[in-house]
Amino acid sequence: MNSFGRLFRVTIFGESHGPCVGVLVDGCPAGLPLDPSDFASDLARRMSGLPGTTARRETDTPSIMSGLFEARTTGAPLAILFENRDVDSNAYEPFRKTPRPGQADLVAFQKFGGFNDHRGGGTFSGRLTAGLVAAGVIAKRLIRPILAEATLVEAGGSTDVEDAVGEAVKAHDSIGGIVECRARGVPVGLGEPFFNSAESLLSHLVFSIPGIKGIEFGAGFGGSRMRGSAYNDIIVSTEGKTETNNAGGINGGITNGNELFFRVAVRPTASIAQNQLTIDLNTGLRGEVMAAGRHDACFALRVPVIVEAACAVVLADLMLLEQKIPRVLEVKEWT
Amino acid sequence: MNSFGRLFRVTIFGESHGPCVGVLVDGCPAGLPLDPSDFASDLARRMSGLPGTTARRETDTPSIMSGLFEARTTGAPLAILFENRDVDSNAYEPFRKTPRPGQADLVAFQKFGGFNDHRGGGTFSGRLTAGLVAAGVIAKRLIRPILAEATLVEAGGSTDVEDAVGEAVKAHDSIGGIVECRARGVPVGLGEPFFNSAESLLSHLVFSIPGIKGIEFGAGFGGSRMRGSAYNDIIVSTEGKTETNNAGGINGGITNGNELFFRVAVRPTASIAQNQLTIDLNTGLRGEVMAAGRHDACFALRVPVIVEAACAVVLADLMLLEQKIPRVLEVKEWT
Amino acid sequence: MNSFGRLFRVTIFGESHGPCVGVLVDGCPAGLPLDPSDFASDLARRMSGLPGTTARRETDTPSIMSGLFEARTTGAPLAILFENRDVDSNAYEPFRKTPRPGQADLVAFQKFGGFNDHRGGGTFSGRLTAGLVAAGVIAKRLIRPILAEATLVEAGGSTDVEDAVGEAVKAHDSIGGIVECRARGVPVGLGEPFFNSAESLLSHLVFSIPGIKGIEFGAGFGGSRMRGSAYNDIIVSTEGKTETNNAGGINGGITNGNELFFRVAVRPTASIAQNQLTIDLNTGLRGEVMAAGRHDACFALRVPVIVEAACAVVLADLMLLEQKIPRVLEVKEWT
Amino acid sequence: MNSFGRLFRVTIFGESHGPCVGVLVDGCPAGLPLDPSDFASDLARRMSGLPGTTARRETDTPSIMSGLFEARTTGAPLAILFENRDVDSNAYEPFRKTPRPGQADLVAFQKFGGFNDHRGGGTFSGRLTAGLVAAGVIAKRLIRPILAEATLVEAGGSTDVEDAVGEAVKAHDSIGGIVECRARGVPVGLGEPFFNSAESLLSHLVFSIPGIKGIEFGAGFGGSRMRGSAYNDIIVSTEGKTETNNAGGINGGITNGNELFFRVAVRPTASIAQNQLTIDLNTGLRGEVMAAGRHDACFALRVPVIVEAACAVVLADLMLLEQKIPRVLEVKEWT
Repeated sequence: MNSFGRLFRVTIFGESHGPCVGVLVDGCPAGLPLDPSDFASDLARRMSGLPGTTARRETDTPSIMSGLFEARTTGAPLAILFENRDVDSNAYEPFRKTPRPGQADLVAFQKFGGFNDHRGGGTFSGRLTAGLVAAGVIAKRLIRPILAEATLVEAGGSTDVEDAVGEAVKAHDSIGGIVECRARGVPVGLGEPFFNSAESLLSHLVFSIPGIKGIEFGAGFGGSRMRGSAYNDIIVSTEGKTETNNAGGINGGITNGNELFFRVAVRPTASIAQNQLTIDLNTGLRGEVMAAGRHDACFALRVPVIVEAACAVVLADLMLLEQKIPRVLEVKEWT
Repeated sequence: MNSFGRLFRVTIFGESHGPCVGVLVDGCPAGLPLDPSDFASDLARRMSGLPGTTARRETDTPSIMSGLFEARTTGAPLAILFENRDVDSNAYEPFRKTPRPGQADLVAFQKFGGFNDHRGGGTFSGRLTAGLVAAGVIAKRLIRPILAEATLVEAGGSTDVEDAVGEAVKAHDSIGGIVECRARGVPVGLGEPFFNSAESLLSHLVFSIPGIKGIEFGAGFGGSRMRGSAYNDIIVSTEGKTETNNAGGINGGITNGNELFFRVAVRPTASIAQNQLTIDLNTGLRGEVMAAGRHDACFALRVPVIVEAACAVVLADLMLLEQKIPRVLEVKEWT
Repeated sequence: MNSFGRLFRVTIFGESHGPCVGVLVDGCPAGLPLDPSDFASDLARRMSGLPGTTARRETDTPSIMSGLFEARTTGAPLAILFENRDVDSNAYEPFRKTPRPGQADLVAFQKFGGFNDHRGGGTFSGRLTAGLVAAGVIAKRLIRPILAEATLVEAGGSTDVEDAVGEAVKAHDSIGGIVECRARGVPVGLGEPFFNSAESLLSHLVFSIPGIKGIEFGAGFGGSRMRGSAYNDIIVSTEGKTETNNAGGINGGITNGNELFFRVAVRPTASIAQNQLTIDLNTGLRGEVMAAGRHDACFALRVPVIVEAACAVVLADLMLLEQKIPRVLEVKEWT
Repeated sequence: MNSFGRLFRVTIFGESHGPCVGVLVDGCPAGLPLDPSDFASDLARRMSGLPGTTARRETDTPSIMSGLFEARTTGAPLAILFENRDVDSNAYEPFRKTPRPGQADLVAFQKFGGFNDHRGGGTFSGRLTAGLVAAGVIAKRLIRPILAEATLVEAGGSTDVEDAVGEAVKAHDSIGGIVECRARGVPVGLGEPFFNSAESLLSHLVFSIPGIKGIEFGAGFGGSRMRGSAYNDIIVSTEGKTETNNAGGINGGITNGNELFFRVAVRPTASIAQNQLTIDLNTGLRGEVMAAGRHDACFALRVPVIVEAACAVVLADLMLLEQKIPRVLEVKEWT
C-alpha cells in the first residue's frame, strides 16, 4: 500500500513518465491557510538544477484538486497533482531486457509480472517524492513553530560537498552522502512504547525515500561503542532537558522534549554514465548497459528537503494523535 | 497502538511486574503444527542467564490461550501469555521521583499523566520482547525454509564480545553492541515501492525493540562513501543473483532474491550499578540515583533472537501479502 | 482480522471450549478509574439465566491482565480474560460431519480447512461477545455522560416478549427479535462524509454480533416509503435540534446532536431441540441432526447489552478522533 | 478517513463544485486489461438523465492518471479523475446561513468549523459516488465470473417505480426506495467470524453511499419474526448449497457459497422544490428555505449501480485476502 500515517495520512501515486505524479493528504485539519505558492520553495529545493543533478526540467507547479476552499483547507482530502512534461521515454526501452545494476528494473518486472511502467523508473522514480515534499509542506505548517531542518553534511565521504560532486561528474561516476535532520521544540510524549516508537515511524517513512540505506538516532552506531556511564543523557530539568543528547531526543520510543536528531545514509546514484555489466534477459548472456536517461551524479543533494518532509509528516501525525494539533484550526462564525 | 503487520498481525501487551506479558498473533494461517515446546529454544536465547545479563529468572513458559486445537493453528487469533513470577517492585519506587537517565522513567510519567505502571519499567520493559520472540517462533515456521539468523558481532566496540562484557561488569558499567541479521532464500518481490518498502517495514519493527538506535542495510553508512561504479551490484543471472550485495538484498524497496542483510546498533544498557546524576522531580534539585533493580550489563547479548523474530514477522507478513504462504497450510478431509 | 476501531481499538479472541475468551483494548486513555467489579452488571445482562436462554453457567469474572495499575488505566493495552469452566464438548462431535443448518459449522470447516476448533462453535461462539461487552463497559465510562441504551422491543414478532419466548420453548423451537438502541447527548460532528460515516461504523460493529441480519437508522426501511416533505427533519435551533428524528441523529454520515437511534434485526436461534435435515459430509447422503448442546431459545434476549457495547465502542473511538475525549483523563503530580 | 478496504483499497476525494472528483484504487493486481471506455456503461447508469433525476449534466469521462500502462494495470495505484464542468454555485450561497433540512449543510459547518466547501454539498455530494462506481468497475472485472446485480424494486412504497416517480415530480416532492442486490458464484469462506464479518464489511461500504438508512441480509427484519425451524436453511449438498436462503448467503459472518442477497433502504431525496422551514443561523429565527439547485426527485434511481460497486469492492478485497484473486493476473515474458 502506498499510504502512511494514522490520522495525517499521505498516499502517493503516479509514474515518472505518466500524465502526472501526485499525493493525497487525508486527515489535514480544517482551517489551515494554504496557497499553491506555499509549495514553491520546498519543491525548488527538491527539483533538479544544481550541478550534479539531472537535466530533466519540470516546473513542479502543484495543482490542488480538492480539499481547499477560499484559501483554507476544508478538512476533506487534499489531492495535489504535478504534471509530467519533460519526458523522454525512448532512453528506457533497452532496460526492459538489460536491467541496470543498482536499479529496480529487474525487481519491478518480477514483482509486477512485467506489467510495470518501466519508463523513467515508473512508480519507483524519485519523481514521486514531489508528492511527499508537498505533504511535508502541509505538515510543516501544522507543526509550527517546530522546525524540521535537514542538511547534506557529507558527500562521497567528504564534507566538501561541492568538490566531491564535481569530481564525481568528471569521473562519469556518482556518489552518495549523509543527511542530518534536526527538529527543535518537539513536545514530550510523541510515539508509543513498542511498535509505533518514534524511531519506528521516522525510519519507516525515511526508508520510503528511494536510495536511503541507513538511519541512526542520536549517537547511533557510534553510541553502540560507548559505555553506559558516558552514553546516558543526564536530566537537568524537571521538564526533561538533558545535558547531552546521545538518545537523539527519544527515550523508550517516546520523544523527550530535547532536539530530535537523526542521520541518514544515502547510497550513490545507481545510474552512471559508464557501461556496466548486466545480464540480457532474453539470451541469458552477460552484456553491457549504459544508463543513458538523465540522472543525478549525486541525488543526495536533493534528499534533505525530502527527509524534512518525512520528519514533519511523522510529527504532524503523532501530534494529532496526542491532540497537540486540533482537528479544526479556527472556527468561523455563521456567515 | 501496540500492533504491527497487515495480514500477520502481532500485538503485544503486559507490564514487567503485572500478572503477565503476552502477545496476540492474528492472521496466522490455519493448519500450522505448533506445540508450546516449540518456543523453548528461542525463548531461552532471549532469557537471562549469561554473564552480563540480568539476575531476574523467569521460566518463560508460554500459555497458549486460543487459536490452537489438536496441535494445529486454527486460523483464529493466538493469544500467548507469560506469567510474571520473579518480581521485586520495591527497587523501582525511587525512580518515580528521581528518574534514571537513559530510561523511559520520565517520558512515561509525562506521556501517561503519571498513571503508567512504573514497576520494572512497566510496559517499556524489555520483558515485553518475550511476546515478540514468541510471534517470531510462529513466523519462522511460516517462512520455512527461509532462515533468519542474527548474531552479536561487536560489543562495546570490540569483536571479542565475552571479554568486553567481562570488563564492563568489572567496571560497574554497561556496553552496547552491533547485531547482524541475514536471511537466505527470501523470494523476489517482497515490499512496496514507497511507503512499505522492505527497509521501511524491517526498520519499523526492529526499532520497536528497546535500545535499538541505528539500522543499515547492505553496505549502509559505509556505502554512502562509495562511488556508484563500485556500489552497484552487478546482476549475473536472469533470476537476479548479483556478484556483490551492497544493497543488502533490496532494490527500490523490493527484495531481489539475494541474501537479506542488515546491521543494527544497540545502545549500552541504561541501568548501571553506579550513582548517576538526575533531577529530583519534587524539589527540582539535582541529585543522584542508582539503578538498583536487576539488569543486563550488556542486553545486546539478548537482542539477536529478537531481531530474528522481527525479521521473520516482517517476512511472514509480506509473504502472505504476496500469496507465497497460503491461508490454510493443508486441508483436512471430513472426519 | 479480529480488531475494530482506529484509536480505541478492540480485539477479541478465544474459543467457546478453549481455556478462555478475552479482549484486548488498545488506546484507552490513561487515568480512567476501573475495577473488575465494574463489569459485573453488564456481564450479568449478557449471561445466561433467563428462561429462554442457555443452561450453560459461567461466572464471567474478568481477569484484567494488563493496562491497569493502582485502580486506573495506564494508557497501555488492557487484556481481559474470561475463563471457560462449564464446558461439555462431547455434544459437538457429531456436527463435524453432519453440520447444523443455520450454524457456521460447515463454513468454518471450509474456511479453515478443517482446523477450526468446532467445540461449542469455537471462535464463532456467542461466548466471544463477553469480550465485546467488557470493551463496552470501558467505552461507556469514556463517553459519559452519554448513555447508550438498548432494549428488546419485539420477540418472534410479538411485543409481549415473555409470552413469545415461553411459547417457543414449549414448541422446542426458537425465535428472534428486534432490538432498539438510543444514545442521548451525542456531540455534533462524529463520523466522516463517506467511508467512515457514523452509520458505516455502527453497522460494521453491530453486524459483528452473531445472528444480526438487519439494521436501520431513524425511520429506516419505513422512511424509504415516505415523501421528502414528511421525512426531512425540520431544524429548530442553531445547534441543530430537529422537530422529528427520521434521520436517527445522523445527516450525511455525521451525528447531528439529536438522539442517535437505530434498530437491529436478530434472527431466531439456529440451534433448536428438534431434528433438522442436513447432509452427511462423509457419505453425501441426507440425514438428520439435533443441536443438542445448550442453547438459547431466544438469544435476542441477550443482545441488547451487546448492542450497547458496540454503540459505546464506536462513540468512544469517534470521540477520541474528534478530541472530545482527552488522551489522559487527569494528570498526577510527581509523587 | 476516506479510505476503505484492506488489500483492494479505495479512497475518494473531491468536491461537487471543485475542479474534480476522483478515486484512488490501491492494491489492484497487475495485468488487468482496462480502458477508459470500460467505465462508460456503469457511469451512465449512475449519471443523471432519467425523469426524476437531476438536470446537472456531466460527461463523466474518467481520466486515468496513473497505474495503467499499455492498457493493463501495473500494480501501482490507479488515480482516476472526473472533471466538474456543469457547475452553478450561486444557488448554494443561502444554505450557508439557512441550512436545508435533511441535508448535511449544518453538520458540515459544525464539524469543519465553517471551512467546508458548501457549494453543491461539497464533499458530501452524491457526485463523489462517481469514484466509487469507477472503483466498482475495476472490482467487477477482478471478481469475474461473479456478477453483482442491483435493482430498484420499490420507489415511494410502490413497485411501479416509474409511476411513483412521476407523481413525486408532479407534487414537487421526492421519494426514496428499496434496492436489492444479488451476487451469484461467491466462493465459500469470505469474511471473518467477528469484526470483519461479510455483513460488517458490506454494510460499512453500503452505508457510505449518501442517503442509505437501512440494510438487511436474506430474510432480514422479516426473518426476526420467523421461528428457527422455518428460518434455518437446510443444507442439501456437501459444498453447502441450501434449500432456502434466509441467511442471504452468509453464516457466522462467512459466505456460504449460496447467493449473496441483501436489501437497502434509500431515504427520499432531501432537496425538494418546496419551501421548507429551517432556522436562520445569523438571527436564530425560524425561516424558510427552498432547495433550488438541481436535484433528483428520486435519487434512489441512481443507487443500484453504486450498491453493485460497493458489493464488488468488498468481494474483491475479501477474495484477495483469501488468495482467490492472484496479485498478478498474468505474467509477461521478457520483451
